[in-house]
Amino acid sequence: MSETFYVVPEAYHEALVAAAFRKRGFSQAEANAGVRLAADATRHGVRTHAGLKALHLDHAIGSTSGGCVPCAKIEKAPSRFKAAEVWNANRKHGQATAYAAIERAMKLADRYGVGMISVDNAFHYLWGGGYVMEAARRGYMAYTNCTAAVSEVVPYGGKFPTLGTNPHSWGFPTTDALGYPVVIDWATSVVAMGRVQQLAREGKPLPEGVALDIEGRPTTDPRKVRSLIPFGAHKGYSLSLIDEIVGAFIGGSLPTLRNRAPVPEGEKRTCTFFFQVWHPEAMNGRAFAKGRNQVENVRAVVRDILGHGNENAVLPGQNAAKFAARCDRNGGLLFSEAEILAFGEISAEIGTRPWALGDFKVAE
Amino acid sequence: MSETFYVVPEAYHEALVAAAFRKRGFSQAEANAGVRLAADATRHGVRTHAGLKALHLDHAIGSTSGGCVPCAKIEKAPSRFKAAEVWNANRKHGQATAYAAIERAMKLADRYGVGMISVDNAFHYLWGGGYVMEAARRGYMAYTNCTAAVSEVVPYGGKFPTLGTNPHSWGFPTTDALGYPVVIDWATSVVAMGRVQQLAREGKPLPEGVALDIEGRPTTDPRKVRSLIPFGAHKGYSLSLIDEIVGAFIGGSLPTLRNRAPVPEGEKRTCTFFFQVWHPEAMNGRAFAKGRNQVENVRAVVRDILGHGNENAVLPGQNAAKFAARCDRNGGLLFSEAEILAFGEISAEIGTRPWALGDFKVAE
Repeated sequence: MSETFYVVPEAYHEALVAAAFRKRGFSQAEANAGVRLAADATRHGVRTHAGLKALHLDHAIGSTSGGCVPCAKIEKAPSRFKAAEVWNANRKHGQATAYAAIERAMKLADRYGVGMISVDNAFHYLWGGGYVMEAARRGYMAYTNCTAAVSEVVPYGGKFPTLGTNPHSWGFPTTDALGYPVVIDWATSVVAMGRVQQLAREGKPLPEGVALDIEGRPTTDPRKVRSLIPFGAHKGYSLSLIDEIVGAFIGGSLPTLRNRAPVPEGEKRTCTFFFQVWHPEAMNGRAFAKGRNQVENVRAVVRDILGHGNENAVLPGQNAAKFAARCDRNGGLLFSEAEILAFGEISAEIGTRPWALGDFKVAE
Repeated sequence: MSETFYVVPEAYHEALVAAAFRKRGFSQAEANAGVRLAADATRHGVRTHAGLKALHLDHAIGSTSGGCVPCAKIEKAPSRFKAAEVWNANRKHGQATAYAAIERAMKLADRYGVGMISVDNAFHYLWGGGYVMEAARRGYMAYTNCTAAVSEVVPYGGKFPTLGTNPHSWGFPTTDALGYPVVIDWATSVVAMGRVQQLAREGKPLPEGVALDIEGRPTTDPRKVRSLIPFGAHKGYSLSLIDEIVGAFIGGSLPTLRNRAPVPEGEKRTCTFFFQVWHPEAMNGRAFAKGRNQVENVRAVVRDILGHGNENAVLPGQNAAKFAARCDRNGGLLFSEAEILAFGEISAEIGTRPWALGDFKVAE
């Protein structure tokens, strides 16, 4: 864990990422949403789904090819249901759409106890954990899933990749009880394709049971990988299916067409998002043991779970909170040398002076 | 798969299970709920959480020891939230409580798009899949979790069992699209403790990586098992945590006290239930590809997932539907010889003539 990080002041990061989005035609508000999510991901150690990935995804399947439409307007469908809304994102910037949705779901939860937003015609929102963490910081329980960008995961018992990595994210308002929100956020494949590519570059093998070759046979050779396997056999497979089924009810089309171009006439290649937020007061039975209040009860339960010799176990969100504290101590966002160089390429794209390692102090 | 099953007419099963609950002091309505869930579990091949387990659990930690209180009344807490309710089950019969909760959540979903019921002071509801399947059959999406009866699962990275097997269940209204509801229902341990006990009886080893001994070390000897491991490393662990955290916000107390007796003064040993139901119309974007409607779109998506060489993959709920069809063809519920004999012991308890194998035809 002795990787060297450089401390990039938030304003530096914001200026570059926002300019890159603006250069591609996004509005200032969209660029700001992109910066906000990228900074929050970086601050919490989520290095795979931060600014570089956002800009890369936009370049690969987004605004350059119609997968994402800068300045698109979200349309809300009329509905007879008071606590649920359905939005047509019209391929708007994913982070801007997702922040708006989680915000609206919180408002619904304030009134109804629970709020639900389903989003059709969406573009990649990057890091689902960021939206549920935002809700959790503000005192709510939150859940989101989405259909992932491309189908690269094989159903349990199958051979061909027809599922996305289809993540799930939950956030819990545990800051008062534990000092940080519990945030659960992971994909339903054992490993990400990015990890496979990294091992291929390094000439290292994959673990057993995480990937298949073009014939649908297990392989540990990262160069032979064509598809990924869901974690936990039929259990992870069923979690991956949830995103596809929820997406299918909202309006998503065939997973194998997702973000592919060209698609057959009349087809759709967009993602869907699904958000639920609920209010902890709307589930408070007010009959806690030992006269505890809700916050004290959550703290007592977690202490019991991590007690009894389990002091080495960590909570989801705990390492993220630790990384954020390290960023705070250093007074900026922490990036590796390779990340600083990659931002240099972004600088070249938008015509500003590239970041140089010498510009930044090394993080403690 | 050549296990011999005997065909027990539903009325036989109903008479025995209902009489057993009545004998223990439960109301006719509670007994009926017990029969309903037991029959539905058996019909769908869920043999581990059917009538025998229900009666066994009640005997072990239920009405005989105050863990469950026959004829208890559910109290609904006053709430300012329109789509969410909090119930105090007062340790009422778990199945009766859960059916009432899922029923109420459907009503809330009709009006608000989504409904949520949190239940404190609950007693084991047996098979969460049964309640979400009921909602799914009637056209709703549904989710439930609960805190499991006892703490026998070790947090990822820990040594001591402080978590329940903490299941999750989701149901999807796919009958029109696929012929049966997709129902996802599993515990968050790799295996159940019942499976460990079965292997111990048979003198067979466990697979690697499913259980720990009293020192918190991995073991494959079922006789040495003290605790279970969550599936999927940190991912299954986080899913198990969700049930405890949700339970802690509702009113559940320390997991290691659950269903233990005696508990310290002022403590609680009850479970919690959590239900969410949402209406598929409340997430319908009405913009499906190729002019499909919602049902057709779900069918098309599932066909894509199970196509392309994935014909051997099955959907969660598919085998359950197959088993139910087999029950229907045979005109009754299917039980093994060992199960028939176990029902014989129940008969003895309530003083009716024991079931005998000769009473029942062998299932096709």
